[in-house]
Amino acid sequence: MMNDFSFQNTTKVHFGREALSKLSSEVIRYGNRVLLVYGGTFLKQCGLYDKIVSELKKEDIEIFDYDLVKPNPRHTDINIGGKMCRDNDIKCVIGIGGGSAIDSAKAIAALAVSDTENCWDLVEAKKPIMKALPVFAVPTMASTGSEMDASCVISNLETEEKKGYNGPAIRPAVTFDDPVNTFTVPAYQTACGSVDIMSHTIDTKYFSKDDKMDMLYRMMDEHLKTVVKWAPVAYTEPDNYEARSNLMWAAAWALNSFMTCGVRQAASVHAMEHELSAVYDMVHGHGIAILTPRWMRYILNEETAPQIARMAYNVYEIDKDTPVMEAAEKAIECTEKLFFETLGLKSRLSDFGIDDTRFEEMAKNACGERGVIRGFVDLTPEDVVNIYRMCL
Amino acid sequence: MMNDFSFQNTTKVHFGREALSKLSSEVIRYGNRVLLVYGGTFLKQCGLYDKIVSELKKEDIEIFDYDLVKPNPRHTDINIGGKMCRDNDIKCVIGIGGGSAIDSAKAIAALAVSDTENCWDLVEAKKPIMKALPVFAVPTMASTGSEMDASCVISNLETEEKKGYNGPAIRPAVTFDDPVNTFTVPAYQTACGSVDIMSHTIDTKYFSKDDKMDMLYRMMDEHLKTVVKWAPVAYTEPDNYEARSNLMWAAAWALNSFMTCGVRQAASVHAMEHELSAVYDMVHGHGIAILTPRWMRYILNEETAPQIARMAYNVYEIDKDTPVMEAAEKAIECTEKLFFETLGLKSRLSDFGIDDTRFEEMAKNACGERGVIRGFVDLTPEDVVNIYRMCL
Repeated sequence: MMNDFSFQNTTKVHFGREALSKLSSEVIRYGNRVLLVYGGTFLKQCGLYDKIVSELKKEDIEIFDYDLVKPNPRHTDINIGGKMCRDNDIKCVIGIGGGSAIDSAKAIAALAVSDTENCWDLVEAKKPIMKALPVFAVPTMASTGSEMDASCVISNLETEEKKGYNGPAIRPAVTFDDPVNTFTVPAYQTACGSVDIMSHTIDTKYFSKDDKMDMLYRMMDEHLKTVVKWAPVAYTEPDNYEARSNLMWAAAWALNSFMTCGVRQAASVHAMEHELSAVYDMVHGHGIAILTPRWMRYILNEETAPQIARMAYNVYEIDKDTPVMEAAEKAIECTEKLFFETLGLKSRLSDFGIDDTRFEEMAKNACGERGVIRGFVDLTPEDVVNIYRMCL
Repeated sequence: MMNDFSFQNTTKVHFGREALSKLSSEVIRYGNRVLLVYGGTFLKQCGLYDKIVSELKKEDIEIFDYDLVKPNPRHTDINIGGKMCRDNDIKCVIGIGGGSAIDSAKAIAALAVSDTENCWDLVEAKKPIMKALPVFAVPTMASTGSEMDASCVISNLETEEKKGYNGPAIRPAVTFDDPVNTFTVPAYQTACGSVDIMSHTIDTKYFSKDDKMDMLYRMMDEHLKTVVKWAPVAYTEPDNYEARSNLMWAAAWALNSFMTCGVRQAASVHAMEHELSAVYDMVHGHGIAILTPRWMRYILNEETAPQIARMAYNVYEIDKDTPVMEAAEKAIECTEKLFFETLGLKSRLSDFGIDDTRFEEMAKNACGERGVIRGFVDLTPEDVVNIYRMCL
């Protein structure tokens, strides 16, 4: 029986080649002092930084720069951003980049108006964020869907934890999705991002114990098919607008609450991957790619087979006469082929020099205080170690 | 090449058997004096009226009743509602019923805070509604999708016009979708509502000149398949929760801007049907049912055939080897079979005593000031008369 649910997503999205032309008119409604949140040197090299600055200058908006974004944003950096906002009377925060930049913008926006100067206090408070500076997002890759969701993930390198906070106040007010801004994403990042998009459907709702509404289940099929079709195109033709558009919009809709309606989100693979990122600073989408097919194989049994087989029939277009268990195996094989051959991702943790030394500790952390990852199939620390070993 | 677009839908939806338990806590955030907007006697007979009143009493909310809702809401009634709000210092408006009730609530909410006492002035102003009392919706049938969209349609019986207004201020703040509240919808209304849901996809975006984003095109397929599958179930098993849930959520998502992204809405069939409702007070969904397959046949040509054939392949599951023109014909036949056999709707205007006396005048009105209905295929008044004649 389907669960009751509540749905709301307030983010406004301007999508297309002219999306950024609306930046200054949207921002000025909230104030004339903004913090740009980004990382690295690429944004300036490719011209996007200058484009954003010149758009903001149309409304004489004063710009402050936070350029400390790195993959897996660190809590100590966020704390610097929070102080910058307070010291400079910042009115809104614009995250420019991938999930790390947008998550950083959200984390900083919440910290800026909170009672603490340490964002890890907000992580540990485990309360929904109801107050934050307005957040804007300019995604430069299709991946996390952070541009339309209400959460952020932060890494604490001291405690080797990767956790986050969420709440309506940090959902972006406005997102500017220009697929052209993702043309420069290298093939490797395109692959990792695409895996992440698929995983947001597979890991949090497509494979799950809860009854799914038929309409949404069908839309999950099509969401996955969209990525299966367009990720390889974007991988080989980086400036294919149609491919980049589909991936960008698929990223936003994977995690914006729509398809999750009525399904309690589980995210078993994400829980296991967060340990890989926290301990080995692994690229999130690559960790997900290595874990997902092994997880599918580990949990495959008579009870889970029909759902895994559905992926074969409806996403990979395997003949519908194929017996269920055989079809489920094919879904796993097709997923491996897509991730490790078509999208060229290395398939093993040992490729990164990772061995089993810390698996037990990581498994324990992944299972958290409850001692179990609840999901499609509940996983104990022992299960998690077994899955990590399958990835070696 | 895909068009740029902007997307935002702020409505919060509580969905499921316990949806109404959240009514009072949502309403009290906006004020303690509400106008209930509904029609007929059924709401009181079935117990829903009492349930809503007792929910609102939890927060001592004072209730005023506007019980003038009829199919195709009249502008003179809306004017009475606007006056009730002003006279009684109403803080928010709750529409309970089908599209007519929710549209009435929206129209009244806007009129209550406008500079005029005649809602037809707002229709004629053709400006987006930026100011209105907060609107809440309790749909009792799956049909118009008014519960998540930003527009309302009003009939002026004096001028025989059916027009409306729209704007962010009249999009419902909160919608309470309990599929159980649609169990009592009679088979005929279930059929009309289901046709309306399909038409919101077919008429405004699925068949259109604009390039569609692959992901959204696929989701339109599944949206239509959902209705094709579940409408006949709800028609014969009125208390099937799964069928009612799917239709209710399909109704909301048909017209909430999601699938329209990048496609300029056309609504040719709706333009033609509005004349039938305005002149003959016809039930909207039934008019749509009679017009849709004739319109599809009238516009079928080498250029339009591939899109119409897609419906055969992807929605009606006709063999993909069927040649395009033959498949397009099959899509039309399957649509006729669904509407006129499975869902039992009378198929001809003559079944309602309508003859061609007023077709030329209606066609001229449908084409409006431009003298043409722009859409998948542009229609002149002569085309519209031809289509009306096909429906006789």
